[in-house]
Amino acid sequence: VPPIITLTTDFGVGSSYVAALKGVVLSIHPEVRLVDLSHAIEPQQIAQAALLLAETALLFPPGTIHLAVVDPGVGTSRRIVAVEIEGHWFICPDNGILGRLLQKCHKDQAGPPAKMFEITSERYFRQPVAPTFHGRDIMAPAAAHLSLGVAPEELGQPLSSLQQLDWPGVVMRANRLAGEVVAVDSFGNLVTNITGDQLQGLPVDTGLSVLCAGHETRGLFTTYADQPAMTLMALVGSNGHLELAIVGDHASRMLGIRVGAEVVIEW
Amino acid sequence: VPPIITLTTDFGVGSSYVAALKGVVLSIHPEVRLVDLSHAIEPQQIAQAALLLAETALLFPPGTIHLAVVDPGVGTSRRIVAVEIEGHWFICPDNGILGRLLQKCHKDQAGPPAKMFEITSERYFRQPVAPTFHGRDIMAPAAAHLSLGVAPEELGQPLSSLQQLDWPGVVMRANRLAGEVVAVDSFGNLVTNITGDQLQGLPVDTGLSVLCAGHETRGLFTTYADQPAMTLMALVGSNGHLELAIVGDHASRMLGIRVGAEVVIEW
Amino acid sequence: VPPIITLTTDFGVGSSYVAALKGVVLSIHPEVRLVDLSHAIEPQQIAQAALLLAETALLFPPGTIHLAVVDPGVGTSRRIVAVEIEGHWFICPDNGILGRLLQKCHKDQAGPPAKMFEITSERYFRQPVAPTFHGRDIMAPAAAHLSLGVAPEELGQPLSSLQQLDWPGVVMRANRLAGEVVAVDSFGNLVTNITGDQLQGLPVDTGLSVLCAGHETRGLFTTYADQPAMTLMALVGSNGHLELAIVGDHASRMLGIRVGAEVVIEW
Repeated sequence: VPPIITLTTDFGVGSSYVAALKGVVLSIHPEVRLVDLSHAIEPQQIAQAALLLAETALLFPPGTIHLAVVDPGVGTSRRIVAVEIEGHWFICPDNGILGRLLQKCHKDQAGPPAKMFEITSERYFRQPVAPTFHGRDIMAPAAAHLSLGVAPEELGQPLSSLQQLDWPGVVMRANRLAGEVVAVDSFGNLVTNITGDQLQGLPVDTGLSVLCAGHETRGLFTTYADQPAMTLMALVGSNGHLELAIVGDHASRMLGIRVGAEVVIEW
Repeated sequence: VPPIITLTTDFGVGSSYVAALKGVVLSIHPEVRLVDLSHAIEPQQIAQAALLLAETALLFPPGTIHLAVVDPGVGTSRRIVAVEIEGHWFICPDNGILGRLLQKCHKDQAGPPAKMFEITSERYFRQPVAPTFHGRDIMAPAAAHLSLGVAPEELGQPLSSLQQLDWPGVVMRANRLAGEVVAVDSFGNLVTNITGDQLQGLPVDTGLSVLCAGHETRGLFTTYADQPAMTLMALVGSNGHLELAIVGDHASRMLGIRVGAEVVIEW
Repeated sequence: VPPIITLTTDFGVGSSYVAALKGVVLSIHPEVRLVDLSHAIEPQQIAQAALLLAETALLFPPGTIHLAVVDPGVGTSRRIVAVEIEGHWFICPDNGILGRLLQKCHKDQAGPPAKMFEITSERYFRQPVAPTFHGRDIMAPAAAHLSLGVAPEELGQPLSSLQQLDWPGVVMRANRLAGEVVAVDSFGNLVTNITGDQLQGLPVDTGLSVLCAGHETRGLFTTYADQPAMTLMALVGSNGHLELAIVGDHASRMLGIRVGAEVVIEW
């Protein structure tokens, strides 16, 4: 089976920059199977891409190569890296974009991935390298060459650490837990940085309050059908994160709540 | 040739939920060829998805598997089904999403599809099944297993009927026919639920009036080039539905007309 | 390796018209590999599609077939053509959509492409041909048949010339050069019709001014990191065009500048 390369960018759906990545990959390895993950990451929002990769990348078969280009530091000295995580390879800028995925994988064990390389071998670059588009001229060719069987060691030098992701923490106190909205999905549901794990042992009934921007809802539910239409409710979503939803409507638009809003749980 | 699975959802273009579906399918059957039909169905708009499937699904080669996840009833007792229609398989919630397609196929003959199954075999589910995302954990695995050659009978029990689609009817009277706008395309054209078949025998010249939201146009034309720029005109579009268009402009935005507006034909 | 057909349209991302094109191509040649270039071309904006094709089409491997359907003239006598450019085939309306690509390829040599055909052979059409959707019924089948090995000569008669693209010119005077904004990318950068070639020999330091809509910036830079955040700057982008950017922000929205705005360079 020809290898799979997934694409995640903040270029915008239908952008010519996306088309360029696809052309470069296929010109180096015409048999590759390209899969669009998302080109709708908000411009330069590394955390949003980090969340998407953590939720979805490892659902693909091992051996998949993930090309992730959200690169506000293009033209600076930030590194470009190839990193192996659980049998998948990631080609991306070293700006924290793998941070959520690593946190998820290494929750129970210390240490960074065993195989990490800085991509520096110019013989695999597309020439001339545009100073504003390393996705096209360095990262896409690296992914394509890797898919052809080039050893990752050939792409550059081994690395021992990666940049951390700038990710909002969850503050836990006695009977209180404070986090924030980190994403709004297409249904308007408010996805928070609070995970189901962090809610273990808390009451799930009306003894628990979830507060956000002056709105309050009580109890934790299992699915959207557990409450009547137009009700604000809290539940742990399919990605393992606490979310606030309005049944049958768009919570973000109805309540005017966006990414960054504080979410507090009290019990 | 590896099988084709098409994807139709209301998850939003670039949503992580779309990426999750793709990962799950490919992890079960890495050779499958995925084709995005649309992820821009408006949230929970079953009728919009039903129209898209009726217009496009059977254009694909027989043997294609269509995974269609517009699922406002997730978490309720609505069924998940596998249905064969003219050599194509559809995996979807049983909420009417196949209604337009069935109407189109069975116009001349009675009866539901011969092969329909409720998907209940947990051994083909992804575990644990999230109560809010059966697309990822039940429907995508079912489509992937079907594409691997699992017999549809293995997925669950036979069904004898499907939920009807909630679809606006066309009211016919002597010299008058009333329908409504059911879609707005990207050019702003107003697609109605009135089909070309229903216009058979009517005058196509100025003896026929089409009225919508206080606007009127006379006659039925063949193509957009039949009228000068900026003219409101009526024609039967490439999908067989009557549509209202403003030549060279966006009728929906210019006239402030949206899905649901009444359209009346008089002659 | 099965052939690649790329798709570029103004149908809108997620439109049923895009799904229809894919179905028709795959029903004729099920092994084809489809690659979405863009379905986000603004309705009927031939110049935008022409720019995207010029930037990206030839990055794909030779032998790729590019289906490009931006067709405001559907229903008029405009021709539908198959054109070979540097080993790639293009199937599109003859409305200038290949104009930028041809300009780029033929800069140093006279004359049109050697192989050009008007697509007229009805035996390769999908029947009946809808008068409003030649993309589905003429162009998609032509691309699919070409990918199956049908000789281009079979599709119709040889052509000797193509329609010119309506493209804004760059006016050069002593110490002054005037062009305009031709695209806004997803980062808000203002892409102009002035190319890097046309700036050869000009000063790159503060002796050079770039003016647009009452805003001025001095000097030409190499990459976005060369200036501090929130600074308006000019540089030659990865597509070879002069662009105006605000570092870390969306220049088009911040300055209220859109496609068509005049850009003047003085030195």
